[in-house]
Amino acid sequence: MPYIKIEVTREGVTREQKTALIKGATQLLTDVLNKDPKSTFVVIDEIDTDNWGVAGETVTDIRKREV
Amino acid sequence: MPYIKIEVTREGVTREQKTALIKGATQLLTDVLNKDPKSTFVVIDEIDTDNWGVAGETVTDIRKREV
Amino acid sequence: MPYIKIEVTREGVTREQKTALIKGATQLLTDVLNKDPKSTFVVIDEIDTDNWGVAGETVTDIRKREV
Amino acid sequence: MPYIKIEVTREGVTREQKTALIKGATQLLTDVLNKDPKSTFVVIDEIDTDNWGVAGETVTDIRKREV
Amino acid sequence: MPYIKIEVTREGVTREQKTALIKGATQLLTDVLNKDPKSTFVVIDEIDTDNWGVAGETVTDIRKREV
Amino acid sequence: MPYIKIEVTREGVTREQKTALIKGATQLLTDVLNKDPKSTFVVIDEIDTDNWGVAGETVTDIRKREV
Repeated sequence: MPYIKIEVTREGVTREQKTALIKGATQLLTDVLNKDPKSTFVVIDEIDTDNWGVAGETVTDIRKREV
Repeated sequence: MPYIKIEVTREGVTREQKTALIKGATQLLTDVLNKDPKSTFVVIDEIDTDNWGVAGETVTDIRKREV
Repeated sequence: MPYIKIEVTREGVTREQKTALIKGATQLLTDVLNKDPKSTFVVIDEIDTDNWGVAGETVTDIRKREV
Repeated sequence: MPYIKIEVTREGVTREQKTALIKGATQLLTDVLNKDPKSTFVVIDEIDTDNWGVAGETVTDIRKREV
Repeated sequence: MPYIKIEVTREGVTREQKTALIKGATQLLTDVLNKDPKSTFVVIDEIDTDNWGVAGETVTDIRKREV
Repeated sequence: MPYIKIEVTREGVTREQKTALIKGATQLLTDVLNKDPKSTFVVIDEIDTDNWGVAGETVTDIRKREV
């Protein structure tokens, strides 16, 4: 009965990538803990870069400097 | 001082349904644990069907098959 | 496919009360959103009163004053 | 390696306020626990007032009465 | 900067299994989204079977029936 | 009505430090967003170092190397 929450910044994650994350996380729980995929939930939470902070600044500001 | 998070897929939950979820969850904590409704928070988190996975696939794909 | 997290202070919640919370929350999602109980998860998270703060102080300190 | 989630109602939080929340929360973990800012994550989750309940009613309804 | 929370029932997850979950989840985010492992957090939350409900009953009760 | 969750590794956080985190986080929400302290919840979640991963390994293993 695992529940997996994946939080990433909202920076163009495609539907294919979401499917791959869900498939991969579900498989991981089966491989490591022998969990039944049917009762494994995966929730992807995309966070605006204004709303995610690292080292005391927003990812928006970090990305600007990276350009 | 309970905090309740309700995560559901974003599939047309109405304002009336949200009010009913909030009222019901608050009442549940009062009935079972005698908690004060005034200090009970309920947060509803609606998740896109592309972002919720069960059994290794997205709810979007599951819904397509159900039609 | 709902997921419900109930956070309460760890103050002697009994097994019977946990069962009642789980049963009640699951029923609520069925009543309001017609969700299938079989795919409804409820997780109860008990938090030490030292670790829960309201109005800027711990519940431990609040409880002391209430005595 | 702290992770801090700040949930507030979505009521016009500005980019400057988000930056101040991220900076302040990161500083707090450094001041109190001597954590390295570089490995401190802060995530701000803005919740629609229809989706946040207090005392059994939505913040939308509470706000209406306050006017 | 991903953050991954894995919630499973507390049923004897070993240190080796935890390491495998952390390694696997971190690799998944690198493979699918090209995320830097150094800034990927994985948190495993083990939940008592009394505190996890499925289909309106605790996992403790479900496990009893399975024996 | 803010809710703040602070997740840190369980490495000897004292009661005084918890009080300081709760007081500081509550003050931050008042300073930045003018939130009422009385309706601000802060929850501290201490995570075993075996259960927290960074860069694909547990904090337990990272700490061993640091010695």
